[in-house]
This record gives sequence, C-alpha cells and structure tokens, in this order.
Amino acid sequence: MSLSTAITTWGNTHFALGNNGRSRFSSHGFLLPNLKIKFYTNNPSPLSISALLTTKQQTDESKNKKKQAMEFNEYVLEKANSVNKALESSVLIKDPVKIHESMRYSLLAGGKRIRPMLCIASCELVGGDESTAMPAACAVEMIHTMSLIHDDLPCMDNDDLRRGKPTNHKIYGEDVAVLAGDALLALAFEHIATQTKGVPSHRIVRVIGELAKCIGAERLVAGQVVDIISEGISDVDLKHLEFIHLHKTAALLEGSVVLGAILGGADAEEVEKLRKFARCIGLLFQVVDDILDVTKSSQQLGKTAGKDLVADKVTYPKLIGIDKSRDFAEELNKEAQAQLAGFDQEKAAPLIALANYIAYREN
Amino acid sequence: MSLSTAITTWGNTHFALGNNGRSRFSSHGFLLPNLKIKFYTNNPSPLSISALLTTKQQTDESKNKKKQAMEFNEYVLEKANSVNKALESSVLIKDPVKIHESMRYSLLAGGKRIRPMLCIASCELVGGDESTAMPAACAVEMIHTMSLIHDDLPCMDNDDLRRGKPTNHKIYGEDVAVLAGDALLALAFEHIATQTKGVPSHRIVRVIGELAKCIGAERLVAGQVVDIISEGISDVDLKHLEFIHLHKTAALLEGSVVLGAILGGADAEEVEKLRKFARCIGLLFQVVDDILDVTKSSQQLGKTAGKDLVADKVTYPKLIGIDKSRDFAEELNKEAQAQLAGFDQEKAAPLIALANYIAYREN
Repeated sequence: MSLSTAITTWGNTHFALGNNGRSRFSSHGFLLPNLKIKFYTNNPSPLSISALLTTKQQTDESKNKKKQAMEFNEYVLEKANSVNKALESSVLIKDPVKIHESMRYSLLAGGKRIRPMLCIASCELVGGDESTAMPAACAVEMIHTMSLIHDDLPCMDNDDLRRGKPTNHKIYGEDVAVLAGDALLALAFEHIATQTKGVPSHRIVRVIGELAKCIGAERLVAGQVVDIISEGISDVDLKHLEFIHLHKTAALLEGSVVLGAILGGADAEEVEKLRKFARCIGLLFQVVDDILDVTKSSQQLGKTAGKDLVADKVTYPKLIGIDKSRDFAEELNKEAQAQLAGFDQEKAAPLIALANYIAYREN
Repeated sequence: MSLSTAITTWGNTHFALGNNGRSRFSSHGFLLPNLKIKFYTNNPSPLSISALLTTKQQTDESKNKKKQAMEFNEYVLEKANSVNKALESSVLIKDPVKIHESMRYSLLAGGKRIRPMLCIASCELVGGDESTAMPAACAVEMIHTMSLIHDDLPCMDNDDLRRGKPTNHKIYGEDVAVLAGDALLALAFEHIATQTKGVPSHRIVRVIGELAKCIGAERLVAGQVVDIISEGISDVDLKHLEFIHLHKTAALLEGSVVLGAILGGADAEEVEKLRKFARCIGLLFQVVDDILDVTKSSQQLGKTAGKDLVADKVTYPKLIGIDKSRDFAEELNKEAQAQLAGFDQEKAAPLIALANYIAYREN
C-alpha cells in the first residue's frame, strides 16, 4: 500500500477496532495469535462485507476513502516537510566540516520520518501543537539515524546501502561514522533541552529521562545486542524474537509517541495507552520489515534485500511463514488501534493512519 | 607527583597565584607564553625561594604542606570512594548480561575519577553538596568512558591497552564495544534526568543542555575528528593543536565543572569563572598527557606509551619541546587558579589541589 492511494481508515476507527476493547498486550510481551483475520488485500473476497454493499453505498464509501486518503496524504506531506525543515536547520555546516557533513548526510537522507510524525501526532492528540513536539520529534530522528549509522558499520551489520545510498562509513570512513553517531546522540538531548519552548521544565526532564531510557542497555541497545548474539543460533524461538523486535525497533517508536504525549500534557492513563499503542506498532513495524526483506527487491526497499536470509537471521517469516506473519501484523495493528478508542477520534486519525501505513507499507 | 605525597597547595592559593589576577584566556584560545617560570620539581634549585627560608620556616611549611597533602589525599579517597559506589550501582548486571558487563568493565576499570571530582568540588564550592552533584558526576564519567571505548576501536586509535587492562573491544568484540559506548552515552542523560534530587527542574534542563553541547560535534567530537584528520599531516601548528586539545579534552572537563556549578546554584559570573578555570585545566591536562606519553613507560601509564610518536601525532613536545611544554603547563595551572581568586579559598582548596594534581600527575 502506498501513502497516496490506499489509506482507508483516516477518521474511521470502526474498520480497525474489532477487539471489543480487550487488550492482548501484557508486560511480558505478545503471544502469537491463532488468527482467522486475513491480511490486507486490494482484492476483497466475494464473501467479504464490502461485497454485500449496494452500488450506491460502494460509491459513497469509495469517495469517502479517497477523501480520507487525500487528507492523510496531505498530513504526511505537511508534517514531513516541517520535520525536514527542522532537521535541516538542526545541523548546519560548521567547523569541523567533515563531521557535520557526515551527520547531515545520514540525517537528511530522506527517511520516512515515521518517528517524528508519531511524536507530533501524539502531542496533537492530547492537545499540544506541532511546535511543542518538534525538538523531540527531531531528536528521535537523530537517535534513529545514529542507530542506523552504527548498525551499518563493518563490525556490526556491515551494510553498504541505506535508503538507496552508500552507508555513512562508505563515504566518510568508519572512524567519522562512529563519531557522527555519537554526535547525533548527544545532539538529540541538546536539541530537546535547549529548543523545547512553552513546556514546564519538569516535563522536559521527564521527556529526556524517557528518551534516554528507551535507547539504553535495557531497550534499543538491548535489542541490538541480543540480535547480534542471536545470529547463527538455530533454536531461537518466538519469545526471543519478540524480545529483539520489542527492544530494537519498538523501544524508539514507543519513545517517539510517549515523548509527544508528555510534551502535549497527557495524563498518566493517556501516556500508558499511547505507550501500549506504540509497542504494538513497534512490533508491527519489525514484523512488516521481516516480511518485506523476503518479499521485496533491494531497489524497492532502498536497502539490501534478503540480508536476513544471508545472515541467517531469525525472522517471523522464517519461524512461522509469511502468511502467519501477515496475520500477526494485522492483529497487532488492531490491538494498537484499540488503545486509541478512548481518544477524540478526529484527533486520533493521524495515529490510526500511521499505524495502517506501518502495517501496509511497501518499503 | 603522586596524590599521596606532593600536593603542596591545599588551602594555599598564594603559591599558585602569580598573575595579578590578569587573565590570558580569550575566547580564541591561549597563546603560548614565553615563560621563565620553571616546571615543578622535587629538587628545588639553591636559588629558589624555598632556599632562602630559615630552618624554622622550612619546618613549619613542611608540616603545613604535609597536613595539606594528607587532607587532600583524604578528600580524594573519600570522593573517589563515593563516586565508585555510585558508579557501581548505576550499571547493574541485568539482561542482556553481555552489554551490562561490557559497560561495567570499562566504567569500573579504576579511572582517576578526575571529572566526577571536579563536578562535585565545583558544586561544593558554590554551596551545593556532594549528593546534588553525584548523578552529574557519574554522567561525566560515563561520557568519558564512552569516548575511551570508541576511541580505542580498531577504526579509531586501535588501542589494545587502557588503564592497564585490555580495551573493551578486545574482551567483548567491536560490535558490543560500539553499543556499550552508545548505552553509556544514553545512560549519562538518563542518570541526570532521573536521579538528580533537590534541584529545580530548569537547572537540570540547563545541565543536560550543557553536557550534550560539550560532547557534540562542536566540542568533544570536534576535537576527536580534527585529531583523526591531523594524523600524518606535518604542518600542524600550535593553534591547530590547541583546537584539538581544547575540544577533545577540555570540553568534558569544562562540562564537569560547569555542571557542578549550575547544580550547586552558581550565578552567571561564577559559572563563567569556573568555565575558564576548567578550560585552562583541560588544556593543561592534555599538555601533561602529551608530556607523559614521551617521558613514561606503558607500565607507568597503564596504557600504551609512545603511541603519539608511533602514530606521528602532533603534540606539544613535538612542536615546542618538553621544557617549553612544561613551562606552558605551569602557566596554564596558574591561569586556572587565578579564576578561583574570588571564591571562598577554603572551599576552593579541592579545585586548586585538583588542578595541581592534573599538572603534576605521573600517569
């Protein structure tokens, strides 16, 4: 599903909420569901609900979906534009030129900006505005970029291609790439501490504590380490795999959403609901990543495809097959969106659509 | 000079202040002085001031110095003990065990804890107490440890020995070493944000902004990058060398002192004086490091000696010779201590003694 055509749930949570508000989420993680729900398809079965609609209803729904898709598309373009502008001015070319160029090379390499968007959308959901969340939104993208630069190093994943371009160390050398990552990590905290305006200081301190925790040795780095250790081990089970994904990917997505929520003034209950939402879409993100790695080409992905297979990494498709992986992705998306049920549905629309985008993206 | 024997200026600033309060410091850095002042020696010349003292005066002064040395020694032992305890409990062995072990391996490897001590002493100087500064004191040591782990990597300095032990990547592998550094960097900010007690939030935010800035692409990382770029270049001049040292080493020492000052409630003028003090001792630290690298053995240093020569790095001894390097170190120490003239001299004693320790250390 591309951003511009198939977002069908903008402003329509009923499509996604089929779980009666019950939560399968627990602090111990997720269990793989025995699902009957089928993965999203552009060719609905003749027995599907849509097949029972009248032509008039179909036309109305089609128009409505198109309108929603256009609105979401506009939202994404507008936010990506704001985020890119903010990122562009967050790292200027200064002395020493090489390190700043290296940081900009990866930071401005045209990522999807999902994390900043989640941060801003979460802030707006609870009544905050874009400008309040923007420094934190930039910070999570800086952290994400740092983790990619370091992950791509020869001593880590040894990747030559990222977002369709040579990886940072291929251009600037390994030493500068290590330092560019370090500098981006530091800049993330500097940016939040010095650029966040109109928010009580105690909230900024809390946000910094949250962000730092979610990238540390018990979260993001934990996921990276266990991922590294697990390479070549044949008996990795689902629980182990879920640990990796919940930490390596979900942690920073969780941070993105929670930071936005805190900055926007969410109460404790709202923060926890959004945290659960974020964990679901975080795991979802990685399950989809696993699926894309075996179903798409390098050109389609903008990065080396099939590398999980080459590295003999354990993935959802490897453990349970592609179909069940897709079922699990669908269930996680529903679970995520169930967390948003208590919020103003109009304001929740961007998060719902972002979850769908993560579920149905093609690269 | 060892910590336990030759600290002669504890509580005695007159020894060190010979500059009439004038400051040679400027925002553009330092100029190499044309000094007549000789470097510290345990064998004073017959023409030195001490040679003119009467036997009674000598005995009194000797007793006084011994007392000061003992007091400073006690101070250092007490603070190092507190810092080590705090560091010990800041990273416990948790899952994933390997990354936490790797972090602890380097963090608890018995460094001199100069940065944490500067942070605490600065906080105490302006009326704060040890516990207020301790999370920040631990944080600067975490950052320092991170920079050492990453600096030692094969793609950087490629060092096998650090603090007398194999470097982190020699034990845990390069991939885990990169991640241990990242995790320590994140933990530093988490620690300040979540563990600092009894300080208004706006001060904590300011402290985090200061720390992040001093380790970023315009300070610590800037120094590391320019240092790397400069290797093998033959026409590096003093200004260039000073840039490296002021950024690679002085930045974090400055951060240590300034963080303590802010947390302790220093006013703007006090912060700026202490910032200048820290820059002086930061440059001093590196000038002395350069000297030690060519005058001591690996065993004496606890790290590979002579590596600057092997790497053909530009150092003060290489540019101006060892004697003039020592003169410069002496002048920087005086300049540093001149910044402390306006403070309560009893409370300033630890910082004065720490500056002397940095100037006269033997490893």
